[in-house]
Amino acid sequence: MFAPVYFDYNATTPVDARVLEAMLPHLRGESGFGNASSRHDHGREARKAIDEARQQVAAAVGAHPTEVVFTSGGSESNNLFLKGAAACIKPGPIAPVIAISAIEHPCVRETARDLVRAMAHQGWKLREIAVDDQGRIDAGDYAEALALWPRLLSVMLANNETGTIQDIPALARQARAIGGWFHTDAVQALGKLDVNFRELNAAGVHAMTVSAHKIHGPKGAGALVLDKRIELRPLISGGGQERGLRSGTENVAAIVGFGRACELIAERLKQDVSRFADMRSELERGLMQLGATVFSQAAQRLPNTVYFALPGIDGETLVGKLDRAGYAVASGAACSSANPEPSHVLQAMGVAPEIAREAVRISLGSDNNVAQIADFLAVLSDTVFKLRRLSALAG
Amino acid sequence: MFAPVYFDYNATTPVDARVLEAMLPHLRGESGFGNASSRHDHGREARKAIDEARQQVAAAVGAHPTEVVFTSGGSESNNLFLKGAAACIKPGPIAPVIAISAIEHPCVRETARDLVRAMAHQGWKLREIAVDDQGRIDAGDYAEALALWPRLLSVMLANNETGTIQDIPALARQARAIGGWFHTDAVQALGKLDVNFRELNAAGVHAMTVSAHKIHGPKGAGALVLDKRIELRPLISGGGQERGLRSGTENVAAIVGFGRACELIAERLKQDVSRFADMRSELERGLMQLGATVFSQAAQRLPNTVYFALPGIDGETLVGKLDRAGYAVASGAACSSANPEPSHVLQAMGVAPEIAREAVRISLGSDNNVAQIADFLAVLSDTVFKLRRLSALAG
Repeated sequence: MFAPVYFDYNATTPVDARVLEAMLPHLRGESGFGNASSRHDHGREARKAIDEARQQVAAAVGAHPTEVVFTSGGSESNNLFLKGAAACIKPGPIAPVIAISAIEHPCVRETARDLVRAMAHQGWKLREIAVDDQGRIDAGDYAEALALWPRLLSVMLANNETGTIQDIPALARQARAIGGWFHTDAVQALGKLDVNFRELNAAGVHAMTVSAHKIHGPKGAGALVLDKRIELRPLISGGGQERGLRSGTENVAAIVGFGRACELIAERLKQDVSRFADMRSELERGLMQLGATVFSQAAQRLPNTVYFALPGIDGETLVGKLDRAGYAVASGAACSSANPEPSHVLQAMGVAPEIAREAVRISLGSDNNVAQIADFLAVLSDTVFKLRRLSALAG
Repeated sequence: MFAPVYFDYNATTPVDARVLEAMLPHLRGESGFGNASSRHDHGREARKAIDEARQQVAAAVGAHPTEVVFTSGGSESNNLFLKGAAACIKPGPIAPVIAISAIEHPCVRETARDLVRAMAHQGWKLREIAVDDQGRIDAGDYAEALALWPRLLSVMLANNETGTIQDIPALARQARAIGGWFHTDAVQALGKLDVNFRELNAAGVHAMTVSAHKIHGPKGAGALVLDKRIELRPLISGGGQERGLRSGTENVAAIVGFGRACELIAERLKQDVSRFADMRSELERGLMQLGATVFSQAAQRLPNTVYFALPGIDGETLVGKLDRAGYAVASGAACSSANPEPSHVLQAMGVAPEIAREAVRISLGSDNNVAQIADFLAVLSDTVFKLRRLSALAG
């Protein structure tokens, strides 16, 4: 038996050994296990560790430590910003609009839908911004959306399925004139691209979501990086932690792990960029030979992500076969795989449902190498051959 | 130098070594690091681990696994129930009321205040229920509160500062007639008392909050135990995890640790009960000799909690002196120690502000022993002597 190969780094990543090492003192009955609000040595150690992690996260994303609000993860950060900001917006003479791209992660899309329902008494409306066939924001539709003077906007930096990167500074600069608050979900971008909140903020981005478990940190920690001029109502009220924006005893170990993982981003980026390029071109070359369509190939994409469809091969079926052959890949986004509907991202790109159902995502990580790609392509080719023969027999 | 002694188990507890052992496979790049929504081996391992933890938590609190909703902790669980339920209550002919005890933790109290502000358009009102001088719900005031037909009620099982235990089944039975939804915050009770949701639910309790880090589990995991007839709007929308009640990639390691910590409750309870009784009577005997008032001494209390005031000795000052002498104790509740106001719990009990400012809490845990109490009393006596001499000199 060979060790299974993990090709699903956009879903989650293993914790880096150095990150775990930083976390362990806070998970053992050592000095750092205290409640960070306690006024004794154990509490102060915990507080100090959180402060240090806040600096590490801020440094990695080009923000000031006071702009970093720790949460339990990306979903909470997205909910905190969208629901929290909507609750603070005073309704004006026209019904307030929230505009999001049609390809947002469910934790933005469902949040926007829920907030429109919850704020129905103020007449909130949701406007989805169309994308082109490569998954890029459609310029014409964006201009039309801006004409509605949205009070809130949310466009992700990089898409989790296709890897498509949006030109967030350009979009934010356009949105500036109308005075809405602009948020970007940078969960998939962090660790794979340079992410700099200072530059985004200068262009007009007010808030940005990041998460630890996508960058070899632990699950259970994330942050909302927030322009301090923005007023938010907290989702979680209570003891007033995180400047009153997120109450609850801080998850010290996870926050410390998040900080350490952020510190390792620069090193990882340097090592991975050229390796990913080699692996991806090898992978896409092999996929094309099997007749695959690679989505968003003409767009700027995350260097680690390849999203493809093999004609006549059901995505779910292929994922299952590859799993049994020792390869962990995804069909559609992990977070929505409980949902048998074809990907909303592909649908927004105008991909026909029958092709969207064939979609399979490979997302590479630091532990992958070119030899794995070659082996994988051989297994894939064999699997596809067998599946096609089966369906020919059945047909 | 002697090792510092931790007397602040109500603020947080160190993770049990057996809990950490259960968590580690999910924190290392081993099989269990996957995203529980992923449809491959790594994902299934994570899903299986969460299911197992759900059974462990359910077993420990006398609930069915399907009644356990995992969250990031106690504060989130309290917010989820109160805000989530209020959002689903259709306003009737009279303005809806939420009734909470006057001694709730800030994550219930501030949440109730915030929800009343957020739902102002529906006319929500907050009613605080008075307590007697021992911190027990005042029967007369409770009856008056019920006469307002509150749609939501929240009374904690045991108070974090005084340790006072409320007769929740009796209170819930009374509330039943009016049809409101009854919630109890059992964060401090779990692990120190028998907590049985089946019995509470039969009496009329609809929801209960528990947290991992108070029972030697990790920070970052908690649960809302919920009667499935109750409809809630999620705080965190997205991928639809936890039956749509709490989206976000599950914090597998913390959830697994929570499950294991729950498994250890029974053993810990058996070992601790008589030991706590001995330690507490020794401690209170010594405190009385120093002229201390012990709060809620006439009430049913958590066996590990002693909350006291020494005449003329400022609580904050004493906590600082004891910290330097190697003892970690609390003044007021840890979560509100950023707040210099005297404890709202003591104020609700009618304790004068100048005495409330003297309050210090000792909360014992499994690692404490009677010898530590004797040593502590000697140090305390010396500290008090010096502080009194100082204030006599100053006076």
